[in-house]
Amino acid sequence: MALALDEARKAAARGEVPVGAVILSPSGDLLAQAGNEVLARKDPTAHAEMLVIRAAAAMIGSERLNGCDLYVTLEPCAMCAQAISLARIRRLYYGADDQKSGGVRHGGRIFSQQSCHHKPDIYSGFAEREARDLLRGFFRDRRDTG
Amino acid sequence: MALALDEARKAAARGEVPVGAVILSPSGDLLAQAGNEVLARKDPTAHAEMLVIRAAAAMIGSERLNGCDLYVTLEPCAMCAQAISLARIRRLYYGADDQKSGGVRHGGRIFSQQSCHHKPDIYSGFAEREARDLLRGFFRDRRDTG
Repeated sequence: MALALDEARKAAARGEVPVGAVILSPSGDLLAQAGNEVLARKDPTAHAEMLVIRAAAAMIGSERLNGCDLYVTLEPCAMCAQAISLARIRRLYYGADDQKSGGVRHGGRIFSQQSCHHKPDIYSGFAEREARDLLRGFFRDRRDTG
Repeated sequence: MALALDEARKAAARGEVPVGAVILSPSGDLLAQAGNEVLARKDPTAHAEMLVIRAAAAMIGSERLNGCDLYVTLEPCAMCAQAISLARIRRLYYGADDQKSGGVRHGGRIFSQQSCHHKPDIYSGFAEREARDLLRGFFRDRRDTG
Protein backbone atom coordinates (compact mmCIF):
# COMPACT_ATOMS: atom_id res chain seq x y z
CA MET A 1 0.00 0.00 0.00
CA ALA A 2 3.03 2.29 0.49
CA LEU A 3 3.74 2.07 -3.24
CA ALA A 4 0.09 2.85 -4.05
CA LEU A 5 0.24 5.89 -1.75
CA ASP A 6 3.39 7.06 -3.55
CA GLU A 7 1.50 6.82 -6.83
CA ALA A 8 -1.40 8.79 -5.34
CA ARG A 9 0.99 11.55 -4.22
CA LYS A 10 2.55 11.67 -7.70
CA ALA A 11 -0.93 11.91 -9.23
CA ALA A 12 -1.75 14.86 -6.96
CA ALA A 13 1.47 16.57 -8.00
CA ARG A 14 0.33 16.24 -11.63
CA GLY A 15 -3.05 17.82 -10.81
CA GLU A 16 -4.90 14.50 -10.99
CA VAL A 17 -7.30 13.14 -8.38
CA PRO A 18 -4.83 11.49 -5.95
CA VAL A 19 -5.48 7.78 -6.26
CA GLY A 20 -2.77 5.18 -6.76
CA ALA A 21 -2.84 1.44 -7.41
CA VAL A 22 -0.52 -1.54 -7.60
CA ILE A 23 -0.93 -5.14 -8.80
CA LEU A 24 1.11 -8.00 -7.43
CA SER A 25 1.50 -11.41 -9.05
CA PRO A 26 0.36 -14.57 -7.23
CA SER A 27 3.89 -14.91 -5.88
CA GLY A 28 4.02 -11.30 -4.72
CA ASP A 29 6.05 -9.73 -7.52
CA LEU A 30 5.19 -6.19 -8.62
CA LEU A 31 3.44 -6.33 -12.01
CA ALA A 32 2.18 -2.77 -12.39
CA GLN A 33 1.86 0.52 -10.51
CA ALA A 34 0.05 3.69 -11.57
CA GLY A 35 -1.76 6.79 -10.43
CA ASN A 36 -4.76 8.43 -12.03
CA GLU A 37 -3.97 9.83 -15.49
CA VAL A 38 -7.39 11.03 -16.65
CA LEU A 39 -6.19 14.53 -17.48
CA ALA A 40 -2.72 13.61 -18.75
CA ARG A 41 -4.11 10.98 -21.14
CA LYS A 42 -7.35 12.86 -21.85
CA ASP A 43 -9.05 9.55 -21.14
CA PRO A 44 -12.05 9.36 -18.79
CA THR A 45 -11.33 5.68 -18.14
CA ALA A 46 -7.71 6.22 -17.03
CA HIS A 47 -8.28 5.57 -13.33
CA ALA A 48 -5.33 4.08 -11.46
CA GLU A 49 -7.03 0.67 -11.17
CA MET A 50 -7.78 0.47 -14.90
CA LEU A 51 -4.21 1.38 -15.79
CA VAL A 52 -2.66 -1.28 -13.56
CA ILE A 53 -5.13 -3.94 -14.74
CA ARG A 54 -4.37 -3.19 -18.39
CA ALA A 55 -0.62 -3.02 -17.76
CA ALA A 56 -0.54 -6.25 -15.76
CA ALA A 57 -2.65 -8.09 -18.37
CA ALA A 58 -0.30 -6.88 -21.10
CA MET A 59 2.69 -7.97 -19.04
CA ILE A 60 1.46 -11.51 -18.42
CA GLY A 61 -0.19 -11.82 -21.85
CA SER A 62 -3.64 -12.77 -20.61
CA GLU A 63 -6.97 -11.00 -20.10
CA ARG A 64 -7.29 -12.85 -16.81
CA LEU A 65 -5.19 -11.96 -13.78
CA ASN A 66 -5.95 -15.12 -11.83
CA GLY A 67 -4.32 -15.10 -8.41
CA CYS A 68 -3.18 -11.48 -8.65
CA ASP A 69 -3.87 -8.94 -5.90
CA LEU A 70 -4.75 -5.27 -6.38
CA TYR A 71 -3.95 -2.52 -3.88
CA VAL A 72 -5.60 0.89 -4.28
CA THR A 73 -5.72 3.90 -1.99
CA LEU A 74 -9.47 4.56 -2.41
CA GLU A 75 -12.61 2.45 -2.72
CA PRO A 76 -12.92 1.70 -6.46
CA CYS A 77 -15.75 3.25 -8.46
CA ALA A 78 -18.23 0.99 -10.28
CA MET A 79 -16.15 1.03 -13.48
CA CYS A 80 -13.03 -0.13 -11.69
CA ALA A 81 -14.87 -2.61 -9.48
CA GLN A 82 -16.41 -4.28 -12.53
CA ALA A 83 -13.01 -4.32 -14.24
CA ILE A 84 -11.53 -5.97 -11.14
CA SER A 85 -14.22 -8.64 -11.42
CA LEU A 86 -13.69 -9.13 -15.17
CA ALA A 87 -9.94 -9.44 -14.59
CA ARG A 88 -10.48 -12.13 -11.94
CA ILE A 89 -8.39 -10.30 -9.33
CA ARG A 90 -7.97 -12.56 -6.27
CA ARG A 91 -7.77 -10.02 -3.47
CA LEU A 92 -8.68 -6.35 -3.38
CA TYR A 93 -7.06 -4.19 -0.70
CA TYR A 94 -8.22 -0.60 -0.50
CA GLY A 95 -7.57 2.38 1.75
CA ALA A 96 -10.36 4.87 2.39
CA ASP A 97 -14.05 4.42 1.69
CA ASP A 98 -15.53 6.71 -0.97
CA GLN A 99 -19.08 7.57 -0.03
CA LYS A 100 -19.40 9.93 -2.99
CA SER A 101 -18.23 7.79 -5.88
CA GLY A 102 -17.41 4.33 -4.54
CA GLY A 103 -18.89 1.24 -6.15
CA VAL A 104 -17.92 -1.47 -3.64
CA ARG A 105 -19.58 -0.52 -0.35
CA HIS A 106 -21.52 2.35 -1.94
CA GLY A 107 -23.48 3.11 -5.12
CA GLY A 108 -23.74 0.10 -7.43
CA ARG A 109 -22.16 -2.29 -4.85
CA ILE A 110 -20.76 -4.25 -7.77
CA PHE A 111 -19.51 -7.30 -5.91
CA SER A 112 -22.81 -7.73 -4.07
CA GLN A 113 -24.86 -8.14 -7.27
CA GLN A 114 -26.12 -11.52 -8.36
CA SER A 115 -24.80 -10.65 -11.82
CA CYS A 116 -21.24 -10.39 -10.46
CA HIS A 117 -19.55 -13.50 -11.80
CA HIS A 118 -16.30 -13.13 -9.87
CA LYS A 119 -15.86 -11.49 -6.49
CA PRO A 120 -12.40 -10.92 -5.01
CA ASP A 121 -11.69 -11.18 -1.30
CA ILE A 122 -11.98 -7.60 -0.07
CA TYR A 123 -9.97 -5.93 2.69
CA SER A 124 -10.28 -2.23 3.47
CA GLY A 125 -9.01 0.44 5.85
CA PHE A 126 -5.31 0.18 4.94
CA ALA A 127 -3.51 3.52 5.37
CA GLU A 128 -7.00 4.96 5.46
CA ARG A 129 -6.06 8.25 7.10
CA GLU A 130 -3.21 8.98 4.68
CA ALA A 131 -5.34 8.13 1.63
CA ARG A 132 -8.23 10.26 2.83
CA ASP A 133 -6.02 13.19 3.83
CA LEU A 134 -4.44 13.18 0.37
CA LEU A 135 -7.89 13.38 -1.24
CA ARG A 136 -9.17 16.05 1.14
CA GLY A 137 -6.08 18.17 0.65
CA PHE A 138 -6.41 17.85 -3.10
CA PHE A 139 -10.04 18.87 -3.25
CA ARG A 140 -9.44 21.71 -0.81
CA ASP A 141 -6.60 23.10 -2.88
CA ARG A 142 -7.57 22.42 -6.42
CA ARG A 143 -8.55 25.09 -8.86
CA ASP A 144 -9.07 22.68 -11.75
CA THR A 145 -12.45 20.97 -12.25
CA GLY A 146 -10.89 17.87 -13.88
CA MET B 1 -27.09 1.13 -34.82
CA ALA B 2 -26.42 -0.60 -38.17
CA LEU B 3 -22.73 0.29 -37.83
CA ALA B 4 -22.66 -1.03 -34.26
CA LEU B 5 -24.25 -4.28 -35.44
CA ASP B 6 -21.58 -4.58 -38.15
CA GLU B 7 -18.93 -4.23 -35.45
CA ALA B 8 -20.68 -6.90 -33.36
CA ARG B 9 -20.65 -9.28 -36.34
CA LYS B 10 -16.96 -8.61 -36.93
CA ALA B 11 -16.26 -9.27 -33.24
CA ALA B 12 -18.08 -12.62 -33.49
CA ALA B 13 -16.00 -13.53 -36.54
CA ARG B 14 -12.86 -12.88 -34.44
CA GLY B 15 -14.16 -15.15 -31.67
CA GLU B 16 -15.02 -12.27 -29.35
CA VAL B 17 -18.35 -11.79 -27.56
CA PRO B 18 -20.38 -10.08 -30.31
CA VAL B 19 -20.95 -6.55 -29.07
CA GLY B 20 -20.34 -3.44 -31.17
CA ALA B 21 -20.43 0.26 -30.39
CA VAL B 22 -20.25 3.63 -32.12
CA ILE B 23 -19.88 7.22 -30.89
CA LEU B 24 -21.24 10.19 -32.79
CA SER B 25 -20.24 13.81 -32.23
CA PRO B 26 -22.83 16.39 -31.15
CA SER B 27 -23.36 17.20 -34.84
CA GLY B 28 -23.77 13.54 -35.79
CA ASP B 29 -20.33 12.80 -37.21
CA LEU B 30 -18.81 9.37 -36.61
CA LEU B 31 -16.01 9.68 -34.03
CA ALA B 32 -15.28 6.02 -33.26
CA GLN B 33 -16.52 2.51 -33.93
CA ALA B 34 -15.35 -0.77 -32.37
CA GLY B 35 -16.28 -4.29 -31.41
CA ASN B 36 -15.14 -6.20 -28.35
CA GLU B 37 -11.40 -6.90 -28.40
CA VAL B 38 -10.87 -8.55 -25.01
CA LEU B 39 -9.15 -11.61 -26.46
CA ALA B 40 -7.30 -9.88 -29.29
CA ARG B 41 -5.82 -7.25 -26.96
CA LYS B 42 -5.57 -9.57 -23.95
CA ASP B 43 -7.26 -6.76 -22.03
CA PRO B 44 -10.24 -7.47 -19.75
CA THR B 45 -11.38 -3.86 -20.08
CA ALA B 46 -11.50 -3.88 -23.91
CA HIS B 47 -15.28 -3.90 -24.23
CA ALA B 48 -16.64 -2.15 -27.32
CA GLU B 49 -17.96 0.80 -25.31
CA MET B 50 -14.63 1.38 -23.55
CA LEU B 51 -12.76 1.29 -26.86
CA VAL B 52 -15.02 3.86 -28.55
CA ILE B 53 -14.98 6.14 -25.49
CA ARG B 54 -11.18 6.07 -25.37
CA ALA B 55 -10.87 6.53 -29.13
CA ALA B 56 -13.36 9.41 -29.26
CA ALA B 57 -11.71 11.15 -26.30
CA ALA B 58 -8.33 10.84 -28.00
CA MET B 59 -9.80 12.16 -31.24
CA ILE B 60 -11.34 15.28 -29.72
CA GLY B 61 -8.52 15.76 -27.20
CA SER B 62 -10.67 15.85 -24.08
CA GLU B 63 -11.61 13.44 -21.30
CA ARG B 64 -15.18 14.71 -21.59
CA LEU B 65 -17.41 13.79 -24.52
CA ASN B 66 -20.05 16.43 -23.86
CA GLY B 67 -22.91 16.23 -26.33
CA CYS B 68 -21.73 12.95 -27.87
CA ASP B 69 -24.05 9.96 -28.30
CA LEU B 70 -23.10 6.30 -27.85
CA TYR B 71 -24.77 3.41 -29.68
CA VAL B 72 -24.15 -0.15 -28.50
CA THR B 73 -25.79 -3.44 -29.41
CA LEU B 74 -26.16 -4.72 -25.82
CA GLU B 75 -27.00 -3.22 -22.44
CA PRO B 76 -23.65 -2.00 -21.06
CA CYS B 77 -22.11 -3.76 -18.05
CA ALA B 78 -21.38 -1.76 -14.88
CA MET B 79 -17.83 -0.94 -16.02
CA CYS B 80 -19.02 0.51 -19.31
CA ALA B 81 -22.03 2.27 -17.77
CA GLN B 82 -19.79 4.04 -15.25
CA ALA B 83 -17.36 4.96 -18.05
CA ILE B 84 -20.30 6.40 -20.04
CA SER B 85 -21.16 8.53 -17.01
CA LEU B 86 -17.55 9.64 -16.45
CA ALA B 87 -17.28 10.58 -20.15
CA ARG B 88 -20.43 12.71 -19.94
CA ILE B 89 -22.10 10.93 -22.88
CA ARG B 90 -25.33 12.76 -23.77
CA ARG B 91 -27.48 9.91 -25.05
CA LEU B 92 -27.09 6.16 -24.75
CA TYR B 93 -28.86 3.98 -27.31
CA TYR B 94 -28.66 0.25 -26.79
CA GLY B 95 -30.08 -2.85 -28.42
CA ALA B 96 -30.88 -5.88 -26.28
CA ASP B 97 -31.18 -6.03 -22.51
CA ASP B 98 -28.55 -8.15 -20.75
CA GLN B 99 -30.12 -9.78 -17.72
CA LYS B 100 -26.93 -11.72 -16.99
CA SER B 101 -24.29 -9.00 -17.03
CA GLY B 102 -26.04 -5.67 -17.68
CA GLY B 103 -25.43 -2.72 -15.37
CA VAL B 104 -28.08 -0.27 -16.56
CA ARG B 105 -31.44 -1.96 -15.99
CA HIS B 106 -29.87 -4.89 -14.14
CA GLY B 107 -27.14 -5.53 -11.55
CA GLY B 108 -25.56 -2.33 -10.25
CA ARG B 109 -28.09 -0.08 -12.08
CA ILE B 110 -25.34 2.51 -12.36
CA PHE B 111 -27.41 5.44 -13.61
CA SER B 112 -30.01 4.97 -10.88
CA GLN B 113 -27.53 5.44 -8.03
CA GLN B 114 -27.40 8.67 -6.04
CA SER B 115 -23.65 8.54 -6.51
CA CYS B 116 -24.06 8.77 -10.32
CA HIS B 117 -22.97 12.30 -11.12
CA HIS B 118 -23.97 12.28 -14.79
CA LYS B 119 -26.79 10.28 -16.34
CA PRO B 120 -27.27 10.15 -20.11
CA ASP B 121 -30.69 10.01 -21.72
CA ILE B 122 -31.26 6.30 -22.28
CA TYR B 123 -33.09 4.63 -25.17
CA SER B 124 -33.23 0.87 -25.61
CA GLY B 125 -34.71 -1.82 -27.82
CA PHE B 126 -33.00 -0.74 -31.07
CA ALA B 127 -32.37 -3.71 -33.37
CA GLU B 128 -33.01 -5.78 -30.28
CA ARG B 129 -33.73 -9.02 -32.10
CA GLU B 130 -30.63 -8.86 -34.28
CA ALA B 131 -28.38 -7.99 -31.34
CA ARG B 132 -29.80 -10.78 -29.20
CA ASP B 133 -29.68 -13.34 -32.00
CA LEU B 134 -26.01 -12.56 -32.57
CA LEU B 135 -25.25 -13.16 -28.90
CA ARG B 136 -27.33 -16.32 -28.68
CA GLY B 137 -25.75 -17.75 -31.79
CA PHE B 138 -22.31 -16.95 -30.46
CA PHE B 139 -22.80 -18.58 -27.09
CA ARG B 140 -24.46 -21.58 -28.70
CA ASP B 141 -21.56 -22.10 -31.07
CA ARG B 142 -18.53 -21.13 -29.10
CA ARG B 143 -15.97 -23.56 -27.88
CA ASP B 144 -13.80 -20.91 -26.26
CA THR B 145 -14.41 -19.78 -22.69
CA GLY B 146 -13.11 -16.25 -23.31
